[in-house]
Amino acid sequence: MDPRVHTHAETLVDHCTDVGPEDDVLIKAPALAEDLVVALYEQLGERGARPKTTLRSRRAGRAYARQMDEADFRTKEHALAEMEATDVVIMVQAGSNAAETSDIDPSKAAASNRANGPVLEERLDSTRWVITQHPTAADAQRAELSTEAWADTVYDAIDRDWAAQRDRQQRMADRLDAADEVRLKSGEHTDVTMSVAGTVGCNDYGKQNLPGGEAYTSPVPDSVEGTVLFDVPIVRNGREIRNARLTFEGGEVVDYAAERGEEVLSSVLETDAGARRVGELGIGMNRGIDAPTGYVLFDEKMGDTVHLALGNAIEEGVGDGAFNESATHVDLIVDMSEDSVIEVDGEVIQRDGVFWFESGFEA
Amino acid sequence: MDPRVHTHAETLVDHCTDVGPEDDVLIKAPALAEDLVVALYEQLGERGARPKTTLRSRRAGRAYARQMDEADFRTKEHALAEMEATDVVIMVQAGSNAAETSDIDPSKAAASNRANGPVLEERLDSTRWVITQHPTAADAQRAELSTEAWADTVYDAIDRDWAAQRDRQQRMADRLDAADEVRLKSGEHTDVTMSVAGTVGCNDYGKQNLPGGEAYTSPVPDSVEGTVLFDVPIVRNGREIRNARLTFEGGEVVDYAAERGEEVLSSVLETDAGARRVGELGIGMNRGIDAPTGYVLFDEKMGDTVHLALGNAIEEGVGDGAFNESATHVDLIVDMSEDSVIEVDGEVIQRDGVFWFESGFEA
Repeated sequence: MDPRVHTHAETLVDHCTDVGPEDDVLIKAPALAEDLVVALYEQLGERGARPKTTLRSRRAGRAYARQMDEADFRTKEHALAEMEATDVVIMVQAGSNAAETSDIDPSKAAASNRANGPVLEERLDSTRWVITQHPTAADAQRAELSTEAWADTVYDAIDRDWAAQRDRQQRMADRLDAADEVRLKSGEHTDVTMSVAGTVGCNDYGKQNLPGGEAYTSPVPDSVEGTVLFDVPIVRNGREIRNARLTFEGGEVVDYAAERGEEVLSSVLETDAGARRVGELGIGMNRGIDAPTGYVLFDEKMGDTVHLALGNAIEEGVGDGAFNESATHVDLIVDMSEDSVIEVDGEVIQRDGVFWFESGFEA
Repeated sequence: MDPRVHTHAETLVDHCTDVGPEDDVLIKAPALAEDLVVALYEQLGERGARPKTTLRSRRAGRAYARQMDEADFRTKEHALAEMEATDVVIMVQAGSNAAETSDIDPSKAAASNRANGPVLEERLDSTRWVITQHPTAADAQRAELSTEAWADTVYDAIDRDWAAQRDRQQRMADRLDAADEVRLKSGEHTDVTMSVAGTVGCNDYGKQNLPGGEAYTSPVPDSVEGTVLFDVPIVRNGREIRNARLTFEGGEVVDYAAERGEEVLSSVLETDAGARRVGELGIGMNRGIDAPTGYVLFDEKMGDTVHLALGNAIEEGVGDGAFNESATHVDLIVDMSEDSVIEVDGEVIQRDGVFWFESGFEA
């Protein structure tokens, strides 16, 4: 086995989730990630914790959804009971075919998400959890890299000095914490403002996402005003969303279009009322990721990007603001590397991807 | 996908477990069985049930057990909570390497089984469940067959007229039900008697095992007397047990030896007091299986065999007898095709594998 898999597993149970002998641990992983599952069981055995693994299979999910009627999705009681008795959740992504669910009606995916709402809530409220990535050939193909180069990309982003990353990001988190308003401008199409007054500036240094690498907050839901062109593509429910353009008024999406995947975007927005509002503003700060990979987990952390999530707010970021509740949470990403600024309370804190504390910054 | 996989899935959710829209279904399957998992999700979607899948991985189990101390195994609370909320369990076997756990101390496997006792009990008491097999190349290798020939063997044993099988087996089940004593004699080494007075003769026509194909009962635990040579090999915890010879007095194993795997047998017997007694007598009646495969699920159903299980009794078979309780249940098999008889209350009902109601039978 690649020795980096062992290091990865150790980081997951140590830095990310701090597992001890009292913990019941739930791993969720596809078949292709079995190496990482094996390495995790080794680590968990060493700590005397109790693991079990749920098989993630998009093929199975597709086969199921095609037979189900939208109205028939209901919460899985055994999944909920399991989550209620779980202390730590380790979710592993390892793709075999990103288009696997591309022939599922997106409204069914939204119905499935709604049905899963209580399980999601239980995980967010009552477990320590982390999402991570195990490299596969299919994912390498999407990133337009050889399998080995993709594995290097994954482990370069994961095997970082997270203490140093934490300190660096804390400057941005503090800035967000103290701020009242954030404005994002990029190219001709993106100019959006939002209130972050009273919300909390948070620091993702690889605890809940591995790779981590962002500063984030949950903006005041009603305050988002303006238009954003999300020009870094993402994949949702097996379909690409490319160049989505959303207009917000009073915090709500009032107009939208996308060059590709407009139907998927539409079904996301129709999940519930909260899905039409912004639950998260994130600012990518992981310089170990230097080109889009097609994977949100990586691309949203890229140093030259910001992202807004439609849907459920991140609890830690809400503070005195209102909590935007939704059964979904979809991160959409803007490239800030050229002709772009982030302003905080009228002051430019990033220009063309360069932060105020980095060399080469022009105020 | 092999069309027989779809038929298999349909039999599992229909004949075996009768799944409806009210059911939360738990599938337990290794990565190599993903085709069957996909086919099951399709069937379960059609019925409006709610599936989830636990990944079975012997590699992971081995990595975990090697790090754990025997005394540290404890019940997985999330697995127990999940099982309590589960209506139907479908367990799929699909081997990649039968020797995967051969370098684990068998006493750790026994400790793991004991810790899993409450989950097992919950499944047996409160769910509809079935165990089945999905064909793989590694399993074909163990059966000394080509991959295609092994798939044919699996589906020939599974795709049967289970109504006809039920009727045929019911004659044997009725005979067991009415009997007071059963005696098994085979070759020089096997001669054992046991009381089945007051116990229930049961008919396995592919409900809890697919393939099914046996008549069975749970003998009176204290009544087993004599010696048995189990000459059909089985694999337990990654190690073969071959030609195990057990002597019973007052129902308890008082002496044992095995040509191979004696240490594994020993650890089975040491699981708990119930593991030293017989929990089941089964008589194989599936003529679709005509040679040992190395898989208990198949070999114990073979028309020319009987098996005794060490450990936990089968509830349905106990009747007025005492329930033999144990955290384990290990089926050991005797070849009855030559120089063998089964006697019920002194009357020969099978000679050299031929039942009294079959042509060629000599009383």
